Amino acid sequence: MTISSALLDHAVDQLATLPGIGRRTAMRLALELLRREQHEVARFTEAIRRMRDELRRCDTCCNISDEARCAICSDPRRDASLICVVEDIRDVIAIEATRQFNGLYHVLGGVISPMDGLGPDDLNTAELLERVRAGSLGGGAPVREVVLALGGTLEGDTTAFYLNRRLHDAGTLVTTIARGISVGANLDQADEATLGRSIMDRKPYEQSMKR
Amino acid sequence: MTISSALLDHAVDQLATLPGIGRRTAMRLALELLRREQHEVARFTEAIRRMRDELRRCDTCCNISDEARCAICSDPRRDASLICVVEDIRDVIAIEATRQFNGLYHVLGGVISPMDGLGPDDLNTAELLERVRAGSLGGGAPVREVVLALGGTLEGDTTAFYLNRRLHDAGTLVTTIARGISVGANLDQADEATLGRSIMDRKPYEQSMKR
Repeated sequence: MTISSALLDHAVDQLATLPGIGRRTAMRLALELLRREQHEVARFTEAIRRMRDELRRCDTCCNISDEARCAICSDPRRDASLICVVEDIRDVIAIEATRQFNGLYHVLGGVISPMDGLGPDDLNTAELLERVRAGSLGGGAPVREVVLALGGTLEGDTTAFYLNRRLHDAGTLVTTIARGISVGANLDQADEATLGRSIMDRKPYEQSMKR
Repeated sequence: MTISSALLDHAVDQLATLPGIGRRTAMRLALELLRREQHEVARFTEAIRRMRDELRRCDTCCNISDEARCAICSDPRRDASLICVVEDIRDVIAIEATRQFNGLYHVLGGVISPMDGLGPDDLNTAELLERVRAGSLGGGAPVREVVLALGGTLEGDTTAFYLNRRLHDAGTLVTTIARGISVGANLDQADEATLGRSIMDRKPYEQSMKR
């Protein structure tokens, strides 16, 4: 694609660095931005720049935050004795969307992956152990339960195994989210490992009907 | 989707204003940008801001340009006696990609569309007629031929009809790009209008085999 403008060319190059956006789409986005008013484009670029420059890590849970303590950790209505451990901020968003969890989070910032050279020390594991030791908000209520909500991958399982051992030593109840057949799915669409797990982890019918 | 950060929320809102990008994709893009170095994100936003603030219209052909005269109009190797009229800059890019045209362009900035309240005066038609009158680069070589390369829509046809009448009065040869069956396409996949047009506009076999 030949473009007669270095300014447009450069903007297209930059837009095309985004995941899932090829040069054709990048060109379409650039031309759309060109059609907009100057102050609208300034608002667009400012929002992105400020997000990157001003967003920080919550001192408590390592989630992204506008302040030293994030909105979830600051919410007095949430149960500070319950901590849900997740890989990254997308998982926090996904769990929040379910409205089924009223505790706090702890964002690891990844999972243990020897292939990628990521060990426990590269993740926010020390911060988690410290929260369990000193209370989830650094003083006050002790941690009653840590829910491991990690992906069902080898790396997720390894991380869960490691954290369970460390947390168990600290005397906390450690639980893990259920694996099984998706709600609304047919059995023949599930993979063998998931179906096998759902049989192993079966529970009394009466209990499964409870919300 | 609940997000605990107003900064992230705002960036996602802005990214989601782009065409074809929903909130889920916008979130993915925002998180990707968050992972990058601060100077990388600054380069990204600067490229977009500069494109919008500094890009101008070529005084000659109304194409976008970094300078008062665009790179195509400034290229002495191009045939200034041949002007290809297109709707917008995307068409310039598409035609340039074919490497089959060595003349200059004229970007109308739209097509005549009474439904959208767009008449000839809302487009860069006066500039085109002036180029035909005064020479395509404002003096020097006269315009030998104007190629109308407009979309095959009602609006494109209306615009072509109007321009042909005005340009014909000015004594220029006016041509229009061929309509027909796509290269590599089967006949049964073409719509009736296109197939009918391709029969009406048939040409001697020997001639059609020439490049």
